[in-house]
Amino acid sequence: MITILRLGHRPARDRRVTTHVALTARAFGADRVLVSTKDPGLERSVRDVARRFGGPFEIETGVAWRRAIAEWRGTKVHLTMYGLPIGDVLPKLPRDDLLVIVGAEKVPRLVYDLADLNVAVGNQPHSEVAALAVFLERYTKGAWEKRRWRGRMSILPSRRGKRVRVSRK
Amino acid sequence: MITILRLGHRPARDRRVTTHVALTARAFGADRVLVSTKDPGLERSVRDVARRFGGPFEIETGVAWRRAIAEWRGTKVHLTMYGLPIGDVLPKLPRDDLLVIVGAEKVPRLVYDLADLNVAVGNQPHSEVAALAVFLERYTKGAWEKRRWRGRMSILPSRRGKRVRVSRK
Repeated sequence: MITILRLGHRPARDRRVTTHVALTARAFGADRVLVSTKDPGLERSVRDVARRFGGPFEIETGVAWRRAIAEWRGTKVHLTMYGLPIGDVLPKLPRDDLLVIVGAEKVPRLVYDLADLNVAVGNQPHSEVAALAVFLERYTKGAWEKRRWRGRMSILPSRRGKRVRVSRK
Repeated sequence: MITILRLGHRPARDRRVTTHVALTARAFGADRVLVSTKDPGLERSVRDVARRFGGPFEIETGVAWRRAIAEWRGTKVHLTMYGLPIGDVLPKLPRDDLLVIVGAEKVPRLVYDLADLNVAVGNQPHSEVAALAVFLERYTKGAWEKRRWRGRMSILPSRRGKRVRVSRK
């Protein structure tokens, strides 16, 4: 099981980027996303994608993040450009229940201490969405490519244009 | 050379996500980003990162996108969840000057026709930032990991906390 914990979410300012975080989590093999701030609109839009395109995928907002980290049984990884290079630490990562913490702007110092590992997907400023995508791509060895989703809606790969299959169920 | 073309950018609504696109482009090995709509604030913030953390990296906004695509000498790839699987098409991609087109919400049909290849990083809805990151990670075979940036500021990987080196030059 892979769970993503999104910190520092402010609904007005961050909803689009946090939606990107949540959908990236789902598409690249995470099972669940926890968001520190309550945001029913965010929950609705992410659940709507999972309902249409397939699941299971869970989202929970308004989560007490300190407790979520402290009580996690399994490995806790914090993605940050200040951390250790992913290429060095990924091979040593245990394969138990994984919590991947991604912040918005400023992440409290406590998170660096509570995490088992602070991991950098490059030590350059870029995007938590990009960091999460590349982390999951590598951690799962691209397992998302073989997954069959069985959602009500599915997109059929095509050379040009858009092909969508909608099944009745 | 790898150039990213960002379509459908609306400064008020999209600046944060487009900033993520631009910084992801830089961090994962692209040389330049072109943005369809004029946005001096976006240019400033991306140039500011390149000035502090190292370059070269260019951004240009207010670009006539139809012409940019039509006149491109080299391969033009459009990232879209409707396209062909990246795993199938990447090995066949020519290694000349590459234009990678990423849209915001709705991409005009013309783009699907002008592109040499419509490529899906998964046929699930997620994020253009994630799609770009994984595309560049695979296209460059993770070359970003070995790059030395030589910027005025650099982040020193660390186990906990933040270490930043600032050189005078």
